[in-house]
Amino acid sequence: MRRATYFDNNGTTALHPKVLQAMLSYLSEQQGNATSRHIFGRSARNAIDQAREQVADAVGAHPSQVIFTSGGTEADNLAITGVAQALEKGRVAISSLEHPAVSRPAEALRWQGWALDQVDCNAHGQVETSALEAILKNKVDIVSIMLANNETGVIQDIAALGDIARQHKAYMHTDAVQALGKINVDFSGLNVHAMSLSSHKINGPQGAGALIMDKRIDIQPLLYGGGQEKGLRSGSENIAAIVGFGAACQLAANEARDRQGKLAVLRERLEQGLHHLDAVIFGAGAERLPNTSFFAFEGIEGETLVMALDKQGFAVASGSACSSDNTEPSHVLLAMGIHPDIARGAIRVSFGNNNELHEVEAFLQALEGELTRLRKLTAIAV
Amino acid sequence: MRRATYFDNNGTTALHPKVLQAMLSYLSEQQGNATSRHIFGRSARNAIDQAREQVADAVGAHPSQVIFTSGGTEADNLAITGVAQALEKGRVAISSLEHPAVSRPAEALRWQGWALDQVDCNAHGQVETSALEAILKNKVDIVSIMLANNETGVIQDIAALGDIARQHKAYMHTDAVQALGKINVDFSGLNVHAMSLSSHKINGPQGAGALIMDKRIDIQPLLYGGGQEKGLRSGSENIAAIVGFGAACQLAANEARDRQGKLAVLRERLEQGLHHLDAVIFGAGAERLPNTSFFAFEGIEGETLVMALDKQGFAVASGSACSSDNTEPSHVLLAMGIHPDIARGAIRVSFGNNNELHEVEAFLQALEGELTRLRKLTAIAV
Repeated sequence: MRRATYFDNNGTTALHPKVLQAMLSYLSEQQGNATSRHIFGRSARNAIDQAREQVADAVGAHPSQVIFTSGGTEADNLAITGVAQALEKGRVAISSLEHPAVSRPAEALRWQGWALDQVDCNAHGQVETSALEAILKNKVDIVSIMLANNETGVIQDIAALGDIARQHKAYMHTDAVQALGKINVDFSGLNVHAMSLSSHKINGPQGAGALIMDKRIDIQPLLYGGGQEKGLRSGSENIAAIVGFGAACQLAANEARDRQGKLAVLRERLEQGLHHLDAVIFGAGAERLPNTSFFAFEGIEGETLVMALDKQGFAVASGSACSSDNTEPSHVLLAMGIHPDIARGAIRVSFGNNNELHEVEAFLQALEGELTRLRKLTAIAV
Repeated sequence: MRRATYFDNNGTTALHPKVLQAMLSYLSEQQGNATSRHIFGRSARNAIDQAREQVADAVGAHPSQVIFTSGGTEADNLAITGVAQALEKGRVAISSLEHPAVSRPAEALRWQGWALDQVDCNAHGQVETSALEAILKNKVDIVSIMLANNETGVIQDIAALGDIARQHKAYMHTDAVQALGKINVDFSGLNVHAMSLSSHKINGPQGAGALIMDKRIDIQPLLYGGGQEKGLRSGSENIAAIVGFGAACQLAANEARDRQGKLAVLRERLEQGLHHLDAVIFGAGAERLPNTSFFAFEGIEGETLVMALDKQGFAVASGSACSSDNTEPSHVLLAMGIHPDIARGAIRVSFGNNNELHEVEAFLQALEGELTRLRKLTAIAV
């Protein structure tokens, strides 16, 4: 692959070399199945126990609250469907900003007879407490509102929203997949019953995630079998991925201040340049993740710009990078009241810990060139 | 970890060095999310497409029939629960030999109002066609019978059983997790609609598996989200694990004859020694996987023997190694009509491609010593 600059870290991140190092002995040497009662099995079990502590420590949770899954999507599905299956059919409420990993299982509940409510956001992409309170005038069983949005990076006041949900005796879940590693995430301070995490968004391996869960909540597994994860998630544990996830959590926690500071510097330079180019920056009036910038230029189609920048050696996203082929304008921007014509222009830069300031400078230069070229083409076409 | 001899390959296997090699560039270099439309995303997509072909080729399927999952347990759950969710409540039939990854989702269907039938086996651990025919006098919607048992290694005549299921218009699934890599597995010849596979049982990485599926069968996903795997299994693809699974399938197919021959030699020497020690070998009257030997000694508790052998540097399993803490006698042996006292003595040796004949010789020597020691202890206790 030719060298290209990677600015799509909300999609996935590169494995940290120290994380790969931690994983390698679990990949290169004979391992046991973690449920086996011989020395290989016990060694695997110990490695998983250590990773469970590392994940718990990084988010202010207790190790016994960590349910390892195959990733963020499975954690979200378990948080919604697993809890719903332990309840009578009732009412579920999710924000209009959720990732499909939350919104689609919620829709699946609707097909099964649940009522589904949408909690709207304001023009900045924030869910106001009054919006949740209005929904909770009905008896709602399950509430899910994400901690930080994958597209705009806008951060919600989950502690306040969770407090309201608890007052109304609703079970409260937050998808913290994009927040982890970019802002401080403290499970006990968020007033939620459950929180989803993903490894590959924080320079850990793909194939691992976790649901952090208040143990007083009844939940049914999605995957039945050998009874792993206290029966809540069966299947032979993916030892190397779990070890890598633990190591990535520990690194992210240790380096939090440095990483957040560096990301903010990159984003500030980017947005200074974007303002100069008359970009519309979505969610700029709200508190956002320090690494994310979601923006558009009038009259320029987002997909076209992404492809043009790809040819120039810059990997950025249009709309949600975690979803498969989908050329509809971002549901997040539509929920914020952005006009579809502007929303179709949206592209996302999401920085990671490997990015450098000179890459941002080069990007701004390439972007300016492509905008000029594309506008000229449009002028000819008209 | 001190050097010990690993004889628990039905539990999990060591990653093949060539498989790790294939995975490493996907672990050490920046990857894109496979749904992203930049060069990193396209590269990931190509890698997954190639692995899909490798898996399909290894089992005589078409790449479009491969649904990648996080492992065998998820594939089994998808095969049972995913198909059931696309049907009205009906009747499911599974053999008495199934792994919990099949039997527990089937039980979960029963709680939801499905009828659950058990197809019994004979004393050799074989499901006879007449047993299935008797069950199919009722209208059955879903049948699941494993291709090879994880404990005894006994192989079922799935082509014949599948033929009967099809005649009765039932959907037929087989769990081929233990069969893959040890005998030839041909999806199109097995007369089934769906077949589960796992990567880490064939010297591939943990965290990958597949459901091979006739596309005419309606199925609902277990995990909803970004719409990966044609909407049937959402979640960012675990690229390195999928690449490793593909490489492991290709290696297993290329080396099938050599591997099967070597495993058979090891097992023959083992069982020659076991006969000499008056072991009962379960399923010995049936066709079995070439690598598996499940046996007991009268008056010796299996757990005790496993622990004693572990101290001597040999890792073997008692009962099902894929299940968590469980000291009940093996349900497989009880289904075969073995007395519980004998069943409690069961231990399993499952050879892998890394084992050598001298390890079998050393094992037999250690086993004889431990049997003598344990029998002496028992005699004193009496």
